[in-house]
Amino acid sequence: MPVDPNAPVEVTAFDWVPDFARSYVRDFRVRWALEEAGIPYRTRLISAVDRPQDYFAEQPWGQVPSYRDDVVQLFESGAIVLHVGRDCETLLPADPAARARAVAWTIAALNSVEPMLMELATIDIFCAGQEWAALRRPGLVEDIRKRLSRLADALGDRDYLEGRFTAADLMMASVLRNLEHTGLLAEQPRLAAYQQRCLARPGYAAAIEAQLTDLQTEQPEAA
Amino acid sequence: MPVDPNAPVEVTAFDWVPDFARSYVRDFRVRWALEEAGIPYRTRLISAVDRPQDYFAEQPWGQVPSYRDDVVQLFESGAIVLHVGRDCETLLPADPAARARAVAWTIAALNSVEPMLMELATIDIFCAGQEWAALRRPGLVEDIRKRLSRLADALGDRDYLEGRFTAADLMMASVLRNLEHTGLLAEQPRLAAYQQRCLARPGYAAAIEAQLTDLQTEQPEAA
Repeated sequence: MPVDPNAPVEVTAFDWVPDFARSYVRDFRVRWALEEAGIPYRTRLISAVDRPQDYFAEQPWGQVPSYRDDVVQLFESGAIVLHVGRDCETLLPADPAARARAVAWTIAALNSVEPMLMELATIDIFCAGQEWAALRRPGLVEDIRKRLSRLADALGDRDYLEGRFTAADLMMASVLRNLEHTGLLAEQPRLAAYQQRCLARPGYAAAIEAQLTDLQTEQPEAA
Repeated sequence: MPVDPNAPVEVTAFDWVPDFARSYVRDFRVRWALEEAGIPYRTRLISAVDRPQDYFAEQPWGQVPSYRDDVVQLFESGAIVLHVGRDCETLLPADPAARARAVAWTIAALNSVEPMLMELATIDIFCAGQEWAALRRPGLVEDIRKRLSRLADALGDRDYLEGRFTAADLMMASVLRNLEHTGLLAEQPRLAAYQQRCLARPGYAAAIEAQLTDLQTEQPEAA
């Protein structure tokens, strides 16, 4: 188990989140990458409700995770996953072309897939019941359907985006979890099977378990 | 001038776009990176109106740019900029910590800043006049104001995000151009000055000029 209070690598995580966010907070992506790389890490828990003011100096948006190791302090889960992958061939192949393609699909997940899924999460979760959300939803869902169809075409009959599992699949499978409250992914059975193939990896299960272990079930009282 | 019809590096671009998109099509980011790196490139122009069906095999969403060189075929402007930067210290410092931080800010531009700016572009340009767009706009603008304020705090009184110009600044300055139809960036004078400092680089001007040279002013007749 890579969680080790004496590890030199530190990842920040929240000490509590509302139920709908449990297992979805983005530190799970970094924990998963560290599991794949076999790198032990410790966690530093912060409050999602009352973010420490000095935390913004290490994570500009006040979000989790931030990350530090012997070399660097980082933020943005996508960047941390790529950093963890730099010496881990499971995540980033050594071959320059294969590595560049894995980075391209990682960024595709972050810049061409996640934004529309987060817009849907805003509509369905954060702004549920608002008039604009109901009016906007059908058009956005159509855009998402088209994007998922193109993604399924790109995957084709391969098991992973570039032949074998890489950081790209870690990120794409993670991003697609934003659709779990909908039936949209199931409309693309090949893509749904691909995501399940990625999430079946032991490193994913360990990452989720570790996040849930760190999250208290009752909201802590304000300090 | 890096545009050279015999160059081994190829970038795709559109042959025509509506006026509001001129100079904004994302190939300018890759052209700018290639200017910074001094790498000559040729362009292959495709139709934005009638995308060739076989183009989706190299760019899953049918967008531009896609990119190829002697090593690899790539898509996603963010990934291409990082790939171009791999041997270009102007874009990605050789020091491992500085390089990882430059990648982190590049991904921050793509995953934590651009999505909300693209949502605003959808409201103001692609869905202008729709009821949901008018209802949604004020809340989104408040979110953007907060994000820009945090970004200005992170920049502090430095000239660039990590001390000196890197790929991170190329990408952040590019992404912030999505606000040009609003006054939101001007509300953060330090951030606005930062963006202008980045866009004052000769490589940016050359990239924009090259894109405009490739774009016809009249919509071509369908083939």
